[in-house]
Amino acid sequence: MSAVLYGVGVGPGDPELMTLKAHGLISQAPVVAYLVNKKGEGLAHSIAAEALNPAAVHVTILMIMAVERGPAMAAYDQGAEAIARHLEAGRDVVFLCEGDPFFYGSFMYLYSRLKDRFTCRAVPGVTSLTACAAELGRPLAARNDVLKVLPAPLENDALASELDHCDAVAIIKVGRHFPRIRGLLDGLGLLPHAHVVESASMPEQKITPLADVPEGGQPYFSTILIYKGSEAW
Amino acid sequence: MSAVLYGVGVGPGDPELMTLKAHGLISQAPVVAYLVNKKGEGLAHSIAAEALNPAAVHVTILMIMAVERGPAMAAYDQGAEAIARHLEAGRDVVFLCEGDPFFYGSFMYLYSRLKDRFTCRAVPGVTSLTACAAELGRPLAARNDVLKVLPAPLENDALASELDHCDAVAIIKVGRHFPRIRGLLDGLGLLPHAHVVESASMPEQKITPLADVPEGGQPYFSTILIYKGSEAW
Repeated sequence: MSAVLYGVGVGPGDPELMTLKAHGLISQAPVVAYLVNKKGEGLAHSIAAEALNPAAVHVTILMIMAVERGPAMAAYDQGAEAIARHLEAGRDVVFLCEGDPFFYGSFMYLYSRLKDRFTCRAVPGVTSLTACAAELGRPLAARNDVLKVLPAPLENDALASELDHCDAVAIIKVGRHFPRIRGLLDGLGLLPHAHVVESASMPEQKITPLADVPEGGQPYFSTILIYKGSEAW
Repeated sequence: MSAVLYGVGVGPGDPELMTLKAHGLISQAPVVAYLVNKKGEGLAHSIAAEALNPAAVHVTILMIMAVERGPAMAAYDQGAEAIARHLEAGRDVVFLCEGDPFFYGSFMYLYSRLKDRFTCRAVPGVTSLTACAAELGRPLAARNDVLKVLPAPLENDALASELDHCDAVAIIKVGRHFPRIRGLLDGLGLLPHAHVVESASMPEQKITPLADVPEGGQPYFSTILIYKGSEAW
Protein backbone atom coordinates (compact mmCIF):
# COMPACT_ATOMS: atom_id res chain seq x y z
CA MET A 1 0.00 0.00 0.00
CA SER A 2 1.61 3.23 -1.07
CA ALA A 3 0.87 6.47 0.75
CA VAL A 4 -1.81 8.85 -0.49
CA LEU A 5 -2.00 12.64 -0.73
CA TYR A 6 -5.53 13.76 0.11
CA GLY A 7 -6.69 17.26 -0.81
CA VAL A 8 -9.43 17.67 1.77
CA GLY A 9 -12.05 20.39 1.63
CA VAL A 10 -12.77 21.65 5.15
CA GLY A 11 -15.73 23.77 4.09
CA PRO A 12 -16.40 27.51 4.29
CA GLY A 13 -15.56 28.25 7.92
CA ASP A 14 -17.88 26.64 10.47
CA PRO A 15 -16.07 23.44 11.51
CA GLU A 16 -19.48 21.71 11.65
CA LEU A 17 -19.63 22.13 7.86
CA MET A 18 -16.73 19.69 7.43
CA THR A 19 -17.83 16.38 5.96
CA LEU A 20 -17.68 13.15 7.94
CA LYS A 21 -15.04 11.96 5.46
CA ALA A 22 -12.90 15.07 5.95
CA HIS A 23 -13.20 14.78 9.71
CA GLY A 24 -12.17 11.12 9.64
CA LEU A 25 -9.14 11.75 7.44
CA ILE A 26 -8.04 14.82 9.38
CA SER A 27 -8.32 13.20 12.78
CA GLN A 28 -6.17 10.27 11.67
CA ALA A 29 -3.65 11.97 9.39
CA PRO A 30 -0.03 11.36 10.37
CA VAL A 31 0.93 14.46 8.35
CA VAL A 32 -1.13 17.59 7.64
CA ALA A 33 -0.14 20.33 5.22
CA TYR A 34 -1.68 23.77 4.70
CA LEU A 35 -1.05 27.32 3.56
CA VAL A 36 -0.04 29.97 6.07
CA ASN A 37 0.54 33.71 5.98
CA LYS A 38 3.69 35.37 7.29
CA LYS A 39 2.32 35.14 10.84
CA GLY A 40 1.99 31.36 10.47
CA GLU A 41 -1.81 31.53 10.38
CA GLY A 42 -3.99 29.78 7.85
CA LEU A 43 -7.79 29.69 7.50
CA ALA A 44 -7.99 26.02 6.47
CA HIS A 45 -5.87 25.08 9.47
CA SER A 46 -7.96 27.13 11.87
CA ILE A 47 -11.17 25.49 10.57
CA ALA A 48 -9.70 22.01 11.07
CA ALA A 49 -7.70 22.72 14.24
CA GLU A 50 -10.04 21.01 16.72
CA ALA A 51 -10.22 17.86 14.61
CA LEU A 52 -6.48 17.39 14.06
CA ASN A 53 -4.57 14.38 15.32
CA PRO A 54 -2.42 15.91 18.12
CA ALA A 55 0.52 13.75 17.04
CA ALA A 56 0.40 14.91 13.41
CA VAL A 57 3.47 16.38 11.74
CA HIS A 58 2.70 19.79 10.19
CA VAL A 59 3.98 20.95 6.79
CA THR A 60 3.30 24.63 6.12
CA ILE A 61 3.49 26.40 2.79
CA LEU A 62 3.88 30.17 2.75
CA MET A 63 1.06 31.81 0.83
CA ILE A 64 2.48 34.54 -1.40
CA MET A 65 -0.08 36.97 -2.80
CA ALA A 66 2.15 38.90 -5.22
CA VAL A 67 0.98 39.57 -8.79
CA GLU A 68 4.28 38.15 -10.04
CA ARG A 69 3.85 34.36 -9.90
CA GLY A 70 7.45 33.19 -9.51
CA PRO A 71 7.74 33.37 -5.72
CA ALA A 72 4.38 31.64 -5.15
CA MET A 73 5.29 28.86 -7.60
CA ALA A 74 8.63 28.41 -5.82
CA ALA A 75 6.79 28.06 -2.50
CA TYR A 76 4.58 25.35 -4.03
CA ASP A 77 7.65 23.59 -5.46
CA GLN A 78 9.18 23.53 -2.01
CA GLY A 79 5.93 22.46 -0.32
CA ALA A 80 5.41 19.69 -2.87
CA GLU A 81 8.88 18.33 -2.17
CA ALA A 82 8.31 18.37 1.60
CA ILE A 83 5.06 16.45 1.03
CA ALA A 84 6.78 14.07 -1.38
CA ARG A 85 9.34 13.10 1.28
CA HIS A 86 6.52 12.03 3.64
CA LEU A 87 4.73 10.10 0.88
CA GLU A 88 7.97 8.34 -0.09
CA ALA A 89 8.37 7.31 3.54
CA GLY A 90 4.89 5.75 3.42
CA ARG A 91 3.06 8.44 5.39
CA ASP A 92 -0.31 9.67 4.10
CA VAL A 93 -0.57 13.44 3.88
CA VAL A 94 -3.77 15.48 4.26
CA PHE A 95 -3.61 18.89 2.59
CA LEU A 96 -6.27 21.13 4.17
CA CYS A 97 -8.26 23.27 1.74
CA GLU A 98 -10.78 26.01 2.53
CA GLY A 99 -14.08 25.16 0.84
CA ASP A 100 -13.44 22.54 -1.81
CA PRO A 101 -10.02 21.49 -3.14
CA PHE A 102 -10.96 21.76 -6.82
CA PHE A 103 -13.09 24.90 -6.66
CA TYR A 104 -10.62 27.73 -7.25
CA GLY A 105 -8.40 26.14 -4.64
CA SER A 106 -4.68 26.02 -4.05
CA PHE A 107 -4.65 22.21 -4.06
CA MET A 108 -4.25 22.16 -7.85
CA TYR A 109 -0.73 23.54 -7.48
CA LEU A 110 0.31 20.57 -5.38
CA TYR A 111 -1.80 18.12 -7.36
CA SER A 112 -0.17 19.12 -10.64
CA ARG A 113 3.28 18.71 -9.10
CA LEU A 114 2.63 15.34 -7.45
CA LYS A 115 -0.11 13.47 -9.33
CA ASP A 116 2.23 11.65 -11.70
CA ARG A 117 4.43 10.38 -8.86
CA PHE A 118 1.91 9.54 -6.14
CA THR A 119 -1.70 8.56 -5.57
CA CYS A 120 -3.60 11.81 -5.04
CA ARG A 121 -7.28 12.13 -4.16
CA ALA A 122 -9.56 15.11 -3.72
CA VAL A 123 -12.25 15.01 -1.04
CA PRO A 124 -14.95 17.52 -1.94
CA GLY A 125 -16.19 20.08 0.56
CA VAL A 126 -18.91 22.68 0.99
CA THR A 127 -17.96 25.80 -0.96
CA SER A 128 -18.36 29.32 0.37
CA LEU A 129 -20.93 29.96 -2.38
CA THR A 130 -23.62 27.67 -1.06
CA ALA A 131 -22.78 28.75 2.49
CA CYS A 132 -23.36 32.37 1.41
CA ALA A 133 -26.72 31.44 -0.13
CA ALA A 134 -27.77 29.52 2.99
CA GLU A 135 -26.94 32.48 5.22
CA LEU A 136 -28.59 34.94 2.87
CA GLY A 137 -31.70 32.76 2.87
CA ARG A 138 -32.24 32.53 -0.87
CA PRO A 139 -31.25 30.13 -3.62
CA LEU A 140 -27.84 30.51 -5.21
CA ALA A 141 -29.57 29.34 -8.39
CA ALA A 142 -32.86 27.61 -9.10
CA ARG A 143 -34.81 25.84 -11.83
CA ASN A 144 -33.25 26.66 -15.22
CA ASP A 145 -31.17 29.64 -14.10
CA VAL A 146 -27.73 30.06 -15.60
CA LEU A 147 -25.26 30.46 -12.72
CA LYS A 148 -21.98 32.26 -13.36
CA VAL A 149 -19.01 32.40 -11.03
CA LEU A 150 -16.87 35.41 -11.89
CA PRO A 151 -13.46 36.12 -10.35
CA ALA A 152 -13.21 39.82 -9.51
CA PRO A 153 -9.63 40.21 -10.85
CA LEU A 154 -11.00 39.89 -14.42
CA GLU A 155 -11.18 43.14 -16.33
CA ASN A 156 -14.38 45.15 -16.41
CA ASP A 157 -15.06 44.42 -20.08
CA ALA A 158 -14.94 40.67 -19.51
CA LEU A 159 -17.10 40.94 -16.41
CA ALA A 160 -19.61 43.26 -18.07
CA SER A 161 -20.10 40.93 -21.04
CA GLU A 162 -21.00 38.10 -18.64
CA LEU A 163 -23.15 40.31 -16.40
CA ASP A 164 -25.04 41.70 -19.38
CA HIS A 165 -27.26 38.60 -19.47
CA CYS A 166 -27.43 36.73 -16.20
CA ASP A 167 -29.81 35.08 -13.80
CA ALA A 168 -27.55 34.26 -10.87
CA VAL A 169 -23.97 35.38 -10.31
CA ALA A 170 -21.35 34.94 -7.61
CA ILE A 171 -18.39 37.29 -7.74
CA ILE A 172 -15.47 35.75 -5.87
CA LYS A 173 -11.97 36.93 -4.89
CA VAL A 174 -13.36 40.41 -4.39
CA GLY A 175 -10.77 41.71 -1.90
CA ARG A 176 -9.09 44.90 -3.07
CA HIS A 177 -11.22 44.92 -6.24
CA PHE A 178 -14.33 45.87 -4.24
CA PRO A 179 -14.59 49.55 -5.23
CA ARG A 180 -14.18 48.76 -8.94
CA ILE A 181 -16.72 45.92 -8.81
CA ARG A 182 -19.22 48.06 -6.92
CA GLY A 183 -18.89 50.76 -9.56
CA LEU A 184 -19.30 48.26 -12.37
CA LEU A 185 -22.44 46.74 -10.86
CA ASP A 186 -23.87 50.19 -10.20
CA GLY A 187 -23.33 51.17 -13.83
CA LEU A 188 -25.08 48.00 -14.98
CA GLY A 189 -28.07 48.60 -12.71
CA LEU A 190 -27.35 45.49 -10.68
CA LEU A 191 -26.94 47.07 -7.22
CA PRO A 192 -30.54 46.33 -6.15
CA HIS A 193 -30.01 42.61 -6.88
CA ALA A 194 -26.70 42.23 -5.06
CA HIS A 195 -25.66 41.30 -1.53
CA VAL A 196 -22.21 41.23 0.04
CA VAL A 197 -21.53 38.25 2.28
CA GLU A 198 -18.42 38.42 4.45
CA SER A 199 -16.98 35.39 6.27
CA ALA A 200 -19.99 33.15 5.58
CA SER A 201 -20.78 30.66 8.38
CA MET A 202 -18.14 32.15 10.70
CA PRO A 203 -18.78 34.11 13.92
CA GLU A 204 -17.73 37.37 12.22
CA GLN A 205 -20.17 36.81 9.34
CA LYS A 206 -21.80 39.94 7.92
CA ILE A 207 -24.43 40.26 5.19
CA THR A 208 -25.19 43.63 3.60
CA PRO A 209 -27.20 44.68 0.55
CA LEU A 210 -24.53 46.00 -1.81
CA ALA A 211 -26.43 49.26 -2.20
CA ASP A 212 -25.97 49.85 1.56
CA VAL A 213 -22.17 49.58 1.48
CA PRO A 214 -20.78 53.12 1.33
CA GLU A 215 -18.76 53.88 -1.80
CA GLY A 216 -15.47 53.92 0.09
CA GLY A 217 -16.36 50.71 1.95
CA GLN A 218 -14.03 47.75 1.63
CA PRO A 219 -15.49 44.52 3.01
CA TYR A 220 -12.88 41.84 3.54
CA PHE A 221 -13.17 38.11 2.66
CA SER A 222 -16.35 38.91 0.79
CA THR A 223 -18.39 37.33 -1.95
CA ILE A 224 -21.03 39.23 -3.91
CA LEU A 225 -24.17 37.30 -4.82
CA ILE A 226 -26.49 38.60 -7.52
CA TYR A 227 -29.85 37.05 -8.13
CA LYS A 228 -32.06 38.14 -11.02
CA GLY A 229 -33.76 34.80 -11.62
CA SER A 230 -37.46 34.23 -11.22
CA GLU A 231 -38.64 34.15 -7.63
CA ALA A 232 -41.90 32.48 -8.59
CA TRP A 233 -41.09 29.25 -6.82
CA MET B 1 -38.56 28.27 21.45
CA SER B 2 -40.53 27.76 18.28
CA ALA B 3 -39.83 24.83 16.00
CA VAL B 4 -37.50 25.16 13.02
CA LEU B 5 -37.61 23.81 9.47
CA TYR B 6 -34.11 22.84 8.38
CA GLY B 7 -33.34 22.31 4.69
CA VAL B 8 -30.35 20.02 5.04
CA GLY B 9 -27.97 19.19 2.20
CA VAL B 10 -26.94 15.55 2.42
CA GLY B 11 -24.29 15.84 -0.29
CA PRO B 12 -23.88 14.15 -3.67
CA GLY B 13 -24.35 10.49 -2.77
CA ASP B 14 -21.62 9.04 -0.55
CA PRO B 15 -23.06 9.29 2.99
CA GLU B 16 -19.53 10.15 4.21
CA LEU B 17 -19.87 13.41 2.26
CA MET B 18 -22.59 14.61 4.64
CA THR B 19 -21.42 17.40 6.92
CA LEU B 20 -21.09 16.94 10.67
CA LYS B 21 -23.91 19.48 11.04
CA ALA B 22 -26.21 17.57 8.68
CA HIS B 23 -25.44 14.31 10.45
CA GLY B 24 -26.20 15.83 13.85
CA LEU B 25 -29.51 17.32 12.74
CA ILE B 26 -30.59 14.19 10.88
CA SER B 27 -29.79 11.82 13.69
CA GLN B 28 -31.83 13.89 16.16
CA ALA B 29 -34.73 15.05 13.98
CA PRO B 30 -38.14 14.14 15.36
CA VAL B 31 -39.58 14.62 11.85
CA VAL B 32 -37.86 14.09 8.49
CA ALA B 33 -39.33 15.06 5.14
CA TYR B 34 -38.14 14.21 1.63
CA LEU B 35 -39.18 13.72 -1.98
CA VAL B 36 -40.09 10.26 -3.24
CA ASN B 37 -40.95 8.73 -6.59
CA LYS B 38 -44.04 6.60 -7.17
CA LYS B 39 -42.25 3.60 -5.67
CA GLY B 40 -41.66 5.55 -2.45
CA GLU B 41 -37.93 5.84 -3.11
CA GLY B 42 -35.92 9.04 -2.81
CA LEU B 43 -32.21 9.66 -3.33
CA ALA B 44 -31.83 12.15 -0.45
CA HIS B 45 -33.52 9.67 1.89
CA SER B 46 -31.31 6.80 0.75
CA ILE B 47 -28.17 8.90 1.33
CA ALA B 48 -29.30 9.80 4.86
CA ALA B 49 -30.96 6.47 5.74
CA GLU B 50 -28.22 5.12 8.03
CA ALA B 51 -28.06 8.36 10.00
CA LEU B 52 -31.79 8.77 10.65
CA ASN B 53 -33.30 8.74 14.10
CA PRO B 54 -35.21 5.42 14.11
CA ALA B 55 -38.08 7.07 15.99
CA ALA B 56 -38.49 9.88 13.44
CA VAL B 57 -41.83 10.54 11.80
CA HIS B 58 -41.52 10.57 7.98
CA VAL B 59 -43.28 13.07 5.70
CA THR B 60 -42.98 12.19 2.02
CA ILE B 61 -43.69 14.46 -0.91
CA LEU B 62 -44.37 12.89 -4.29
CA MET B 63 -41.94 14.14 -6.90
CA ILE B 64 -43.81 14.92 -10.12
CA MET B 65 -41.62 15.39 -13.18
CA ALA B 66 -44.28 16.59 -15.64
CA VAL B 67 -43.62 19.64 -17.84
CA GLU B 68 -46.94 21.08 -16.67
CA ARG B 69 -46.18 22.59 -13.25
CA GLY B 70 -49.60 22.45 -11.60
CA PRO B 71 -49.45 18.92 -10.18
CA ALA B 72 -45.92 19.38 -8.80
CA MET B 73 -46.90 22.68 -7.16
CA ALA B 74 -49.96 21.01 -5.63
CA ALA B 75 -47.70 18.29 -4.19
CA TYR B 76 -45.48 20.96 -2.62
CA ASP B 77 -48.56 22.77 -1.24
CA GLN B 78 -49.68 19.55 0.39
CA GLY B 79 -46.17 18.71 1.67
CA ALA B 80 -45.74 22.22 3.08
CA GLU B 81 -49.00 21.89 5.01
CA ALA B 82 -47.98 18.50 6.43
CA ILE B 83 -44.68 20.07 7.57
CA ALA B 84 -46.51 23.12 8.96
CA ARG B 85 -48.64 20.92 11.22
CA HIS B 86 -45.48 19.45 12.81
CA LEU B 87 -43.89 22.89 13.22
CA GLU B 88 -47.07 24.25 14.80
CA ALA B 89 -46.96 21.36 17.27
CA GLY B 90 -43.40 22.40 18.21
CA ARG B 91 -41.56 19.62 16.37
CA ASP B 92 -38.47 20.55 14.32
CA VAL B 93 -38.54 19.19 10.79
CA VAL B 94 -35.49 18.24 8.70
CA PHE B 95 -36.09 18.30 4.96
CA LEU B 96 -33.46 16.15 3.26
CA CYS B 97 -31.94 17.60 0.08
CA GLU B 98 -29.55 15.95 -2.38
CA GLY B 99 -26.43 18.08 -2.69
CA ASP B 100 -27.17 21.53 -1.31
CA PRO B 101 -30.63 22.90 -0.49
CA PHE B 102 -30.16 26.19 -2.35
CA PHE B 103 -28.26 24.89 -5.38
CA TYR B 104 -31.00 24.06 -7.90
CA GLY B 105 -32.77 22.20 -5.12
CA SER B 106 -36.38 21.44 -4.32
CA PHE B 107 -36.11 23.01 -0.88
CA MET B 108 -36.94 26.44 -2.34
CA TYR B 109 -40.50 25.26 -3.03
CA LEU B 110 -41.04 24.52 0.66
CA TYR B 111 -39.01 27.50 1.81
CA SER B 112 -41.08 29.92 -0.24
CA ARG B 113 -44.28 28.43 1.18
CA LEU B 114 -43.20 28.40 4.83
CA LYS B 115 -40.56 31.08 5.44
CA ASP B 116 -43.04 33.80 6.39
CA ARG B 117 -44.79 31.61 8.96
CA PHE B 118 -41.89 29.68 10.54
CA THR B 119 -38.17 29.86 11.22
CA CYS B 120 -36.49 28.17 8.26
CA ARG B 121 -32.76 27.53 7.90
CA ALA B 122 -30.67 26.06 5.10
CA VAL B 123 -27.69 23.89 5.98
CA PRO B 124 -25.31 23.86 3.01
CA GLY B 125 -23.98 20.63 1.56
CA VAL B 126 -21.43 19.35 -0.94
CA THR B 127 -22.84 19.74 -4.45
CA SER B 128 -22.55 17.11 -7.15
CA LEU B 129 -20.38 19.52 -9.16
CA THR B 130 -17.40 19.49 -6.86
CA ALA B 131 -17.88 15.76 -6.29
CA CYS B 132 -17.72 15.27 -10.08
CA ALA B 133 -14.51 17.31 -10.27
CA ALA B 134 -12.95 15.35 -7.38
CA GLU B 135 -13.74 12.05 -9.05
CA LEU B 136 -12.56 13.28 -12.44
CA GLY B 137 -9.32 14.42 -10.82
CA ARG B 138 -9.19 17.94 -12.20
CA PRO B 139 -10.32 21.36 -11.03
CA LEU B 140 -13.92 22.38 -11.62
CA ALA B 141 -12.49 25.88 -12.06
CA ALA B 142 -9.19 27.50 -11.17
CA ARG B 143 -7.43 30.85 -10.90
CA ASN B 144 -9.45 33.45 -12.85
CA ASP B 145 -11.61 31.03 -14.85
CA VAL B 146 -15.23 31.96 -15.42
CA LEU B 147 -17.36 29.00 -14.33
CA LYS B 148 -20.82 28.59 -15.83
CA VAL B 149 -23.49 26.19 -14.65
CA LEU B 150 -25.93 25.55 -17.48
CA PRO B 151 -29.19 23.61 -17.09
CA ALA B 152 -29.62 21.28 -20.07
CA PRO B 153 -33.34 22.04 -20.55
CA LEU B 154 -32.39 25.52 -21.87
CA GLU B 155 -32.70 25.91 -25.62
CA ASN B 156 -29.68 25.38 -27.85
CA ASP B 157 -29.41 29.07 -28.76
CA ALA B 158 -29.17 30.11 -25.12
CA LEU B 159 -26.68 27.36 -24.36
CA ALA B 160 -24.57 28.08 -27.44
CA SER B 161 -24.25 31.77 -26.59
CA GLU B 162 -22.86 30.85 -23.17
CA LEU B 163 -20.64 28.07 -24.51
CA ASP B 164 -19.22 30.33 -27.18
CA HIS B 165 -16.79 31.87 -24.67
CA CYS B 166 -16.12 29.71 -21.68
CA ASP B 167 -13.33 28.41 -19.48
CA ALA B 168 -15.17 25.92 -17.28
CA VAL B 169 -18.72 24.67 -17.65
CA ALA B 170 -20.96 22.22 -15.85
CA ILE B 171 -24.09 21.13 -17.67
CA ILE B 172 -26.65 19.85 -15.17
CA LYS B 173 -30.09 18.21 -15.42
CA VAL B 174 -28.91 16.41 -18.55
CA GLY B 175 -31.29 13.43 -18.39
CA ARG B 176 -33.34 13.04 -21.56
CA HIS B 177 -31.59 16.04 -23.13
CA PHE B 178 -28.36 14.07 -23.52
CA PRO B 179 -28.47 13.46 -27.31
CA ARG B 180 -29.27 17.11 -28.06
CA ILE B 181 -26.53 18.38 -25.73
CA ARG B 182 -24.00 15.95 -27.18
CA GLY B 183 -24.83 17.19 -30.68
CA LEU B 184 -24.57 20.82 -29.60
CA LEU B 185 -21.16 20.32 -27.98
CA ASP B 186 -19.93 18.39 -31.00
CA GLY B 187 -20.97 21.22 -33.32
CA LEU B 188 -19.13 23.73 -31.12
CA GLY B 189 -15.93 21.65 -31.09
CA LEU B 190 -16.19 21.04 -27.35
CA LEU B 191 -16.31 17.22 -27.32
CA PRO B 192 -12.56 16.85 -26.64
CA HIS B 193 -12.88 19.01 -23.51
CA ALA B 194 -15.92 17.27 -22.04
CA HIS B 195 -16.47 14.39 -19.63
CA VAL B 196 -19.70 12.75 -18.53
CA VAL B 197 -19.88 11.90 -14.83
CA GLU B 198 -22.72 9.62 -13.74
CA SER B 199 -23.69 9.13 -10.08
CA ALA B 200 -20.62 10.92 -8.69
CA SER B 201 -19.33 9.48 -5.38
CA MET B 202 -21.79 6.55 -5.48
CA PRO B 203 -20.91 2.88 -6.02
CA GLU B 204 -22.42 2.98 -9.53
CA GLN B 205 -20.29 6.01 -10.50
CA LYS B 206 -19.08 6.11 -14.09
CA ILE B 207 -16.83 8.64 -15.82
CA THR B 208 -16.51 8.75 -19.60
CA PRO B 209 -14.95 11.21 -22.03
CA LEU B 210 -17.98 12.60 -23.87
CA ALA B 211 -16.39 11.72 -27.21
CA ASP B 212 -16.46 8.04 -26.15
CA VAL B 213 -20.21 7.94 -25.48
CA PRO B 214 -21.87 6.51 -28.58
CA GLU B 215 -24.28 8.87 -30.29
CA GLY B 216 -27.32 6.92 -29.18
CA GLY B 217 -25.99 6.63 -25.62
CA GLN B 218 -28.09 7.96 -22.79
CA PRO B 219 -26.25 8.19 -19.49
CA TYR B 220 -28.58 8.63 -16.53
CA PHE B 221 -28.10 11.01 -13.57
CA SER B 222 -25.23 12.58 -15.43
CA THR B 223 -23.41 15.87 -15.36
CA ILE B 224 -21.17 17.06 -18.19
CA LEU B 225 -18.02 18.92 -17.18
CA ILE B 226 -16.14 21.00 -19.74
CA TYR B 227 -12.75 22.45 -18.97
CA LYS B 228 -11.01 24.79 -21.39
CA GLY B 229 -9.15 26.86 -18.82
CA SER B 230 -5.41 27.04 -18.56
CA GLU B 231 -3.79 23.92 -17.17
CA ALA B 232 -0.55 25.74 -16.44
CA TRP B 233 -0.88 25.38 -12.69
